[in-house]
Amino acid sequence: MQVFDIVPVKYENEDLFVLDQTRLPGEEIYCKLKSKEDVWEAINRLRVRGAPAIGVAAGYGLYISVRDFDGDNLVKFGEKLRDVKNYLITSRPTAVNLEWALLRMEERYKEFCCETALNNDIDGIEEIERLKKVLLEEAHNIRIEDEENCKAMGKHGLSLLKKGMGILTHCNAGTLATAKYGTCLSPIYLGKEKGYEFKVFADETRPLLQGARLTTWELKKAEVDVTLICDNMASQVMKNGWVQAVVVGCDRMAANGDGANKIGTSGVAILAKEYGIPFYMFVPTSTIDMNTRKGDDIIIEERDGEEIYKMWYKKPMAPEGVKTFNPAFDVTNHKYITAIVTEKGILRPPYKESIKKLMDGE
Amino acid sequence: MQVFDIVPVKYENEDLFVLDQTRLPGEEIYCKLKSKEDVWEAINRLRVRGAPAIGVAAGYGLYISVRDFDGDNLVKFGEKLRDVKNYLITSRPTAVNLEWALLRMEERYKEFCCETALNNDIDGIEEIERLKKVLLEEAHNIRIEDEENCKAMGKHGLSLLKKGMGILTHCNAGTLATAKYGTCLSPIYLGKEKGYEFKVFADETRPLLQGARLTTWELKKAEVDVTLICDNMASQVMKNGWVQAVVVGCDRMAANGDGANKIGTSGVAILAKEYGIPFYMFVPTSTIDMNTRKGDDIIIEERDGEEIYKMWYKKPMAPEGVKTFNPAFDVTNHKYITAIVTEKGILRPPYKESIKKLMDGE
Repeated sequence: MQVFDIVPVKYENEDLFVLDQTRLPGEEIYCKLKSKEDVWEAINRLRVRGAPAIGVAAGYGLYISVRDFDGDNLVKFGEKLRDVKNYLITSRPTAVNLEWALLRMEERYKEFCCETALNNDIDGIEEIERLKKVLLEEAHNIRIEDEENCKAMGKHGLSLLKKGMGILTHCNAGTLATAKYGTCLSPIYLGKEKGYEFKVFADETRPLLQGARLTTWELKKAEVDVTLICDNMASQVMKNGWVQAVVVGCDRMAANGDGANKIGTSGVAILAKEYGIPFYMFVPTSTIDMNTRKGDDIIIEERDGEEIYKMWYKKPMAPEGVKTFNPAFDVTNHKYITAIVTEKGILRPPYKESIKKLMDGE
Repeated sequence: MQVFDIVPVKYENEDLFVLDQTRLPGEEIYCKLKSKEDVWEAINRLRVRGAPAIGVAAGYGLYISVRDFDGDNLVKFGEKLRDVKNYLITSRPTAVNLEWALLRMEERYKEFCCETALNNDIDGIEEIERLKKVLLEEAHNIRIEDEENCKAMGKHGLSLLKKGMGILTHCNAGTLATAKYGTCLSPIYLGKEKGYEFKVFADETRPLLQGARLTTWELKKAEVDVTLICDNMASQVMKNGWVQAVVVGCDRMAANGDGANKIGTSGVAILAKEYGIPFYMFVPTSTIDMNTRKGDDIIIEERDGEEIYKMWYKKPMAPEGVKTFNPAFDVTNHKYITAIVTEKGILRPPYKESIKKLMDGE
């Protein structure tokens, strides 16, 4: 499928690239990220976005920021690694995968230290070189596992859908938001291969238009039947009886099943409930944050109000100096979620129990 | 109040002008409408918009299109008038006030014919001149009555609101949408005069951004505290507890209380219900269409999809050739409407009964 030639984050010939999603659909340009500052900027400016893709970029980003360390002291290496981690973690606050990937890289460093300590080999250029290889491997693993998780979510998700269904989605949780395949778009691609003939409605997703710019772009590439609507048209499309399922991604899920996702998701969930349409949230386990008890505890990123009325437009679309409120995410209460699709299977309410069971590996 | 210097439709020195709302907030330019084609274009292209303002423009528009009639035959005059009416009525399908104003002008013509017939004065240059004056008077009356109705709606509406309330509105049903004062913004202006200190949230209202371009513009002029949000942020603003009432206008209300208004209104109504916030629809009786039994019978205008991704933007914001669905209105089921505010008072459910009683003049 042509869409899978598109890779949002790639590591090639020892260079890290991200497809600059702020320029899509007009231009397909890969930016080379050469420093921790480049990585921070790419995540902060949404050149790479989508919780799983941010995780992949963060893994590689941490690696390229420490690989030039030229000492022979593991402890000093660890200090540098922690500095970079603490810096990159500030690039965006809401997506848990950023933190998750950085901590995973740090964890791998710690494991390495333990292993070498057991061998009484703490220091030495060779150990440092071996450690760098181990960290690159870990970054690769984050990417490869995400691909596999997306595939698995596609399979589980497809079991909830039927041929010919109308499916509404918000924002972009597709190939562009992950290593490959996407989370909530994965079953649509899998269905496409199997001849399911879905009709997809893509909310444009203001203010940054990820639905208009990214979701329609990748679905069209895959020749999926997709119709673009404004966010405020979802109610009418549902009322017309054109939607039999809503599928969305997630940026951070609390332990009780409340899920933060792109601003507007909670509204779509409430509409779906009102019209009796199932609402499915696609959540790789790396996006579940057991340290956050409930949705209200999730920090919601607020962005510059000019994104709303100045950024894309030929001329300002509101009076100069107008007051704005521009949250990048909202939290969908678990009571509106019909099922949570993870790579390990489908969760049903009560989520507090089903999530705990899954995360405990029972 | 400075905002009331702004008049969306004005008849001055025998010329008809509309404030070109497609250019706001950047430019304040009045277009002179010289022919029925100009009037049709101004309504169709939304230079003048908002159901009551369209009614006012249609009244004057009909008048300026027949005033050059230079025969002496009332029947021939009537044919011309009907031709213009049938033409103008096609400029937009959903707002009932267009049809209502044109029929009212035609009705005035018929009355005039009856009066003159009784006097055995059917034909003659003098009768034609007298008729023209009568029609201009009728157009003035439509405007003046709308102003009075808006004032009355402001008074009734304010009785539903409390000092310091947060109020969310969608699209623009303000001064710009009426002869003056607005329908659902009228109580906000009245409240402003009385020191109510409302905090207004204005949905930007995609795709044509009437909220961002028009509502924030006129509320800022009146120094009302207004915050611009994207349509998909309404759920979060409500969840934050910042909204105690939703106020919206209406383009056509069916006899059962279902109300067509700007696309997205039905979604806002469903959110309001879910969050337990009262939802008030402001409906001058000229907007109530007793010939339409229920909302499903209202014809919803669909507009060009390029409005969604091409019209305002520096570059196309979706892939070339993307399929779209672009309804200009949706219908809010009466079950979501807490109260209907008319110029004659406040209606409560069951609306079928309360509307009938009001329209029968009981």
